[in-house]
Amino acid sequence: MTTQSQDQHTAGGPPLSRRERARAATIEEIKETATRLMSEQGTTDLRFSDIAREMGMTAPALYRYFADRDELLTALIADTFDELGAIVAAAREQVPADDVWGRFLAVADAYRSWAKQEPVRFALILGMPVPGYNAPEDGPTTEAAQRAMSQLKAIFFDAADQGVLDKPLLTDVDEALRECVEVEKAEHPDEPTPSPETFQAMLHSWASLHGFSSLEAHGHLRWLTPEGRDALFLSYVRLTAITAGLPVPPAAD
Amino acid sequence: MTTQSQDQHTAGGPPLSRRERARAATIEEIKETATRLMSEQGTTDLRFSDIAREMGMTAPALYRYFADRDELLTALIADTFDELGAIVAAAREQVPADDVWGRFLAVADAYRSWAKQEPVRFALILGMPVPGYNAPEDGPTTEAAQRAMSQLKAIFFDAADQGVLDKPLLTDVDEALRECVEVEKAEHPDEPTPSPETFQAMLHSWASLHGFSSLEAHGHLRWLTPEGRDALFLSYVRLTAITAGLPVPPAAD
Repeated sequence: MTTQSQDQHTAGGPPLSRRERARAATIEEIKETATRLMSEQGTTDLRFSDIAREMGMTAPALYRYFADRDELLTALIADTFDELGAIVAAAREQVPADDVWGRFLAVADAYRSWAKQEPVRFALILGMPVPGYNAPEDGPTTEAAQRAMSQLKAIFFDAADQGVLDKPLLTDVDEALRECVEVEKAEHPDEPTPSPETFQAMLHSWASLHGFSSLEAHGHLRWLTPEGRDALFLSYVRLTAITAGLPVPPAAD
Repeated sequence: MTTQSQDQHTAGGPPLSRRERARAATIEEIKETATRLMSEQGTTDLRFSDIAREMGMTAPALYRYFADRDELLTALIADTFDELGAIVAAAREQVPADDVWGRFLAVADAYRSWAKQEPVRFALILGMPVPGYNAPEDGPTTEAAQRAMSQLKAIFFDAADQGVLDKPLLTDVDEALRECVEVEKAEHPDEPTPSPETFQAMLHSWASLHGFSSLEAHGHLRWLTPEGRDALFLSYVRLTAITAGLPVPPAAD
């Protein structure tokens, strides 16, 4: 993933030569063109020939920047996870740290809103894999997904730090899932680890948030009114927080 | 949607002529070929030219059976919803009617398993819309979706009939969502209508089931072990049933 790391890690390194800057700018333009084409065409199934045509390049010239389509897709997926993560983080940080419910709602709302605004990019990172694409094992896409998901985790750690994290509604955790927590601990020894029941509740929360956002973003809740969908979303976020042991204010009358 | 209705309603009508039988068989073969190509190519973005080539026909000949790609997609989506509905119904009926929890788990498990086995067809009916496809308003796809979803509804009515449906955990229902219940009532006057809080809980249940199934079917839970995913699923179905007011047996030790 040389291209991508060159592109992403320029900020901290030595100043780039004119040649390197031109290369980085072209890489950026390729990714922007690919992203725009995906949204315009309504599909994640990118074609190098389309991108080249849009940019007035030949398809072979594109290969000087990305070894193959999988490499470009990997860069796009990692960038998109990073963008989602940044949007969710910004939403969380706009709410005071002691308002755990407010932060949970802000994170959920940011995920939902982004999915609605960017249904194709949402599908790119969290929907059906792009036909023929093979993600590198434990590569940049996996790491970027974990960075994005850490925003949800952070809410639970905030709540625990402030002493307002209750036990979730379900406290039974199967041995097989406990083992997954142990694997996570071993792989990320420097990160705080939630209890098995909170780990389980965090995954339940993510699945709930994802289920609503994905049904809505792809048009499967269109038979409800927009106000009905908003009400359903809010009630679902409340339910999710309650069952996960997060603090929830009383419902408005 | 002439082609599709001809195809679907032959069973009850007068015997078909030899010519009509041949036509129905070709329509069936087109749909089977399209479905196979989708799964093989990993995309819902069908091409008439690919289907024609596979069948040894010309693309223009295909248009004698389906006026355009949208008409074929509409038939495939309706068929796929019907297939999912039938699979879920069969799973439900294998469990005695008085075992409401068993039936709920069977329905959830059938939805999840089908999504895993048929990720592309799952995406076809419940994922990102096919690029450029416009579903007919209130057409056969909407009706088929409602038939499939009625399997989940049926569990709640079974439970209510047997006097084992509790109030869901959330009983507050926003006015906007209450209005959606009224619209549903008016549109389907012959069907039983759930209370607003159960309507809300049913939608929460569907979103949960869909969230897990879609993350798993498209590979986003692969960082958990298969046994961990099974445990997560079972705990999530339990949580969903508990919060929806459905009866749930105590957790196994």
